[in-house]
Amino acid sequence: MALIVQKYGGTSVGNVERIGNVATKVKGWRDQGHDVIVVVSAMSGETNRLVELAKATQETPSPRELDVLLSTGEQVTIALLAMALAARGCPARSYTGSQVHIRTDSAFNKARILDIDNQHIRADLAQGRVVVVAGFQGIDEAGNITTLGRGGSDTTAVALAAALKADECQIYTDVDGVYTTDPRVVPEARRLERITFEAMLEMASLGSKVLQIRSVEFAGKYNVPLRVLSSFEEGEGTLITYEEEGMEEALISGIAFNRDEAKLTIVGVPDQPGVAYKILGPIGDANIEIDMIIQNVGVDGSTDFTFTVHRNDYKKALEILQNSSIELGAREVSGDNKIVKISLVGVGMRSHAGIASTMFGTLAKEGINIRMISTSEIKISVVVDEKYLELGVRALHSAFGLDQERP
Amino acid sequence: MALIVQKYGGTSVGNVERIGNVATKVKGWRDQGHDVIVVVSAMSGETNRLVELAKATQETPSPRELDVLLSTGEQVTIALLAMALAARGCPARSYTGSQVHIRTDSAFNKARILDIDNQHIRADLAQGRVVVVAGFQGIDEAGNITTLGRGGSDTTAVALAAALKADECQIYTDVDGVYTTDPRVVPEARRLERITFEAMLEMASLGSKVLQIRSVEFAGKYNVPLRVLSSFEEGEGTLITYEEEGMEEALISGIAFNRDEAKLTIVGVPDQPGVAYKILGPIGDANIEIDMIIQNVGVDGSTDFTFTVHRNDYKKALEILQNSSIELGAREVSGDNKIVKISLVGVGMRSHAGIASTMFGTLAKEGINIRMISTSEIKISVVVDEKYLELGVRALHSAFGLDQERP
Repeated sequence: MALIVQKYGGTSVGNVERIGNVATKVKGWRDQGHDVIVVVSAMSGETNRLVELAKATQETPSPRELDVLLSTGEQVTIALLAMALAARGCPARSYTGSQVHIRTDSAFNKARILDIDNQHIRADLAQGRVVVVAGFQGIDEAGNITTLGRGGSDTTAVALAAALKADECQIYTDVDGVYTTDPRVVPEARRLERITFEAMLEMASLGSKVLQIRSVEFAGKYNVPLRVLSSFEEGEGTLITYEEEGMEEALISGIAFNRDEAKLTIVGVPDQPGVAYKILGPIGDANIEIDMIIQNVGVDGSTDFTFTVHRNDYKKALEILQNSSIELGAREVSGDNKIVKISLVGVGMRSHAGIASTMFGTLAKEGINIRMISTSEIKISVVVDEKYLELGVRALHSAFGLDQERP
Repeated sequence: MALIVQKYGGTSVGNVERIGNVATKVKGWRDQGHDVIVVVSAMSGETNRLVELAKATQETPSPRELDVLLSTGEQVTIALLAMALAARGCPARSYTGSQVHIRTDSAFNKARILDIDNQHIRADLAQGRVVVVAGFQGIDEAGNITTLGRGGSDTTAVALAAALKADECQIYTDVDGVYTTDPRVVPEARRLERITFEAMLEMASLGSKVLQIRSVEFAGKYNVPLRVLSSFEEGEGTLITYEEEGMEEALISGIAFNRDEAKLTIVGVPDQPGVAYKILGPIGDANIEIDMIIQNVGVDGSTDFTFTVHRNDYKKALEILQNSSIELGAREVSGDNKIVKISLVGVGMRSHAGIASTMFGTLAKEGINIRMISTSEIKISVVVDEKYLELGVRALHSAFGLDQERP
């Protein structure tokens, strides 16, 4: 008998029939003797409907009131799921974030969980009830309703699992696990049985939108075993844990990619202390997030900077950079918004040499020119022309044997 | 400067545009220097939508979970109204029933308010904010969400007005006040400027659906001046208060009627102690509410009973009565579901003789046969054939001068 926290997203609870299916699934786990806590999101479409109502009422809706409004979405789902469970003879009780004291800071629309009072939950579990908790929401010290921002329901589930020392936190979604890469690009992509928190973080942050980064970080921090599975199909999904001794860890977990990148370059800047800050400071001040950064020092005492930003911020970043370049006496500013980033991710890289050269060799053989390279302990990213995305990902997927069954 | 509690019903906040109109109205009161607390219902249609979702999920939805679900309706409205006020430069803050500790008993779906913590509200008013409170909802001792049942938002408004000792509780609705009778039946019906709590209770319980009975009782109990006005038109509405000395109280406030009545008679029952209980007990046990009751004692030691029930319960009541009649050895059972009740209401009756005879005389002159009569201190009700409803109400309205302007 285990204590399991399950989270079902908006698509999984998108209508009354689907809520019924979730209830049947939950009851199945409970009938096996497990204690089950279920965290749910708003029914798909509901959050957007509420946001539209807010925008029609106030151009920039008050953050406090927006949270009062949005938190109703999950509240509807918890009540319906508790009813659906009861209708199947499974005793259940629903709680809002406020009712189980999911205490957060006061950063409306993007609050962070501080702690959870699990007294109610423990009492209900002891009485054989399934406990249904509204994801995405909490209350601050003063009793104001807060929300955790998009994807916050995953964080709620992980936080509950941590607070209750659950045996597993299961995130049900519309995919059946974490894949070696996007199956729409590589049909041979395979579901991973396991992946480490670190590798998952790199995969997630690079655009594999299966899990929210924050929830993976949270799970890693509190060592909560996390499992991603499908709401709609049977299967084991993918388990995300720390590397265990003797665990068969793959050399490479997968290949992530990001189509939303743009690249900017400033050439011939005098190489003086503080120059990086002078270039990147104004970009950051404009709330533009910078991803990769590369600096080359030239022979003539000048230096070149290249960095990438989200494609939506390209124009604005280019303008800012052009202004800075005059001030700095730079030789030239250029940019390219037809690039993509491809990343190889795997904790095995730490102990294995030759991964980078295999990667670069594979791309070279396909005639793909590498425009930027950046590496971390468990990741190698390259920037290439947009048109090479599919070719590059497929070649790497095959070169690293990701389409082969593991031994 | 006064402290005013205003309540806007579902039609008044039925869409974003109407919520905007309410905000403009509320701001107008605040700009005049008043402290304003606003209680709102769910947007019209929303409660029904939620009830449908519940019924589609569980045949008889769990009462606790139904309240979790339904309370979201008002929560949406408070957030939107607070936004609409802010958009008009009027500082505002919204609160759910739970946030202002509207503490109720645990009778889910029909809870009663026990007390209210007005600390938050006082603090916000002191800071110049309009306070927006969700109607219809509260929390019980254990922190469960409760609702007060249909029309509960009126009760919330009155309870807040009582707790804060407000100068006036204004109920905004889609009619512009309380009328001498239904204007659809008597076009000459006039709006009353004032009516007493007692007369209002009689008018409300007899089918003038302007205000919930419970909220009028509550207002009377705590002596909260209550005003009914229109959300859509300008006007003074109708003020409901206690009789004041020197107050021009009308002899008759108005004429109420009820089309939903049915009449049952059991003839020739042995006149023994406990016979009323034997007849009416089984009816009550079947959850059928009995309205008027009349008993005649015959000369032969037997007695006749006539009583009225809601027309929907007619068939069921008749069946029960037929069964009882065999047991009781009654002579005959008969019924009529084509009857209506017409009531004359007015606190002036207490001190004026001749009202009843004027009433009966007026009906006789029109050839209307009276089938039952029942009187209270401030009300005379008669049961007549359905077909005479309009004729009877119009004749009485004119006979008592209700279509005349008061001096």
